[in-house]
Amino acid sequence: MLEKVKEKLRKVLKEVSMNKSDLVVLGFLRRKSMYGYEIIQWLKTHHMDEWADVKMPSVYKAMQRLEKKEYISGEKVTEGNNPPRTVFSITEKGKEFLLEMLEYFMVKSENPHDFWIGICFLNQGFTKGKFLQILTDRKQKMKEHLKCHKQHFEQMKSTEKWKLMPFYIKTLMKMGTKMNAIEIESLDELKKEAENKENEIFFIKED
Amino acid sequence: MLEKVKEKLRKVLKEVSMNKSDLVVLGFLRRKSMYGYEIIQWLKTHHMDEWADVKMPSVYKAMQRLEKKEYISGEKVTEGNNPPRTVFSITEKGKEFLLEMLEYFMVKSENPHDFWIGICFLNQGFTKGKFLQILTDRKQKMKEHLKCHKQHFEQMKSTEKWKLMPFYIKTLMKMGTKMNAIEIESLDELKKEAENKENEIFFIKED
Repeated sequence: MLEKVKEKLRKVLKEVSMNKSDLVVLGFLRRKSMYGYEIIQWLKTHHMDEWADVKMPSVYKAMQRLEKKEYISGEKVTEGNNPPRTVFSITEKGKEFLLEMLEYFMVKSENPHDFWIGICFLNQGFTKGKFLQILTDRKQKMKEHLKCHKQHFEQMKSTEKWKLMPFYIKTLMKMGTKMNAIEIESLDELKKEAENKENEIFFIKED
Repeated sequence: MLEKVKEKLRKVLKEVSMNKSDLVVLGFLRRKSMYGYEIIQWLKTHHMDEWADVKMPSVYKAMQRLEKKEYISGEKVTEGNNPPRTVFSITEKGKEFLLEMLEYFMVKSENPHDFWIGICFLNQGFTKGKFLQILTDRKQKMKEHLKCHKQHFEQMKSTEKWKLMPFYIKTLMKMGTKMNAIEIESLDELKKEAENKENEIFFIKED
C-alpha cells in the first residue's frame, strides 16, 4: 500500500517537473548537438517564444538544470583563436526523459496547447501505431470538448443571461469554437500524413 | 537624464510584475466583490485554467500579493453560525492598476494570447475610440504577421528544405496560418460590435 502511495507521489513530482523549456532544449538537442545560442536561435526561427510562450531566460535556466541532472552534457570546444565555447549534447538518460516528456505533453497534460508544443519534437518518439492512437484519443477529446462548448453556447443563447453578456465574451466564445474546429481539422491532416508510407522515417519501427 | 533612466526602469519593473493571475483576480473583483473560492469558481466556469493557462495555486498567491499591495481588501463576514469567511473587494488603487494591466495585455505584450486574456476584462476599461484604435493596431500587426508567415511558407515550399521538413511541422505551420486568419476575423467582429450603439455601456464615456 505504502509502495503504491510512493509510486503515485513519484509520478506527481515527475509531472510537476515537466516544463516547456526542458522539452524545447531536449527536443532540439535530440536532432543535433548545439551551442547554447544556437538553441535560442532555433527557438526564434520557429517563433516558439511567441506561440509556445517559451522565454529565453527560462531556456538558459533549463540548460543549467538539465546539465546538473545529466540529461545533457556540455563540452568545451575551441575553434581557431576564439575563446572556447560549450557545445551541448543529449545523453541517453536525457533521451529517455524526453520520451516521457513527449508522452506527458501529448497525452496527459490538461493544457490544450501542450499537445502542439509536444508535436514539434515528435521525431521518432513513438511507433506509428502509438501515434495514431494518440491522435484518435485526442480527436475524441476535442470533439467532446467542442460538443460541450456548442451545447453550452446554444443553451446560453436561449436565456436572458445571453442578452446581458458582453459582446467581447460572445466573440471570444465563438472564436474558441472555431479554433477547436481547426484543431480537429489539423488532427485529421496529421492522421492522413502519418499513414503515408513516405513518413515512416519519423516513427520508431514497430517490433 | 537620470530621471529618464529611472522612469524607464520603473516602467520595466512594472511590466515584469504584470501577470495573468493578478489580471484575473482584479478583473473578476471589478465586477463584484467575491469570496476567494468564488473567484476560483468563475475561473473554472470560464475554463480559464485551460485556455488561458491560469492555475489555481497562482491565483491564491495573487490574492495574497494584491492584498499586501492594497489593490484588493479582504473583510471577514459571518453568516449565521458559519465560521467567518473573507470577502474580497477591489480598491481604487487596484482599479487604476487593473487599467494599466489591461493596457499592457492588450497593447504592449509580445505574447499574442495576452490580448485575448485582456479582453475578458475589458468592461469599461477604455473609451470606445481608444478600443477601436487598439483593434485597428492589432489587426494591422496580425495582418503583417500573417503576410510574413505566408511568405515564409511559400518560400520554404520552393526549396529542398521543404521536402525534408517533417509532416507534423508542416501541419503545425498551416494550422498557425488558419488560426491567425480566425483571429483577424474575430477582431473584425469586435470592431462591428463595438460600433453598435447598444454596446456603448461597455466603454468609458468620451469627454
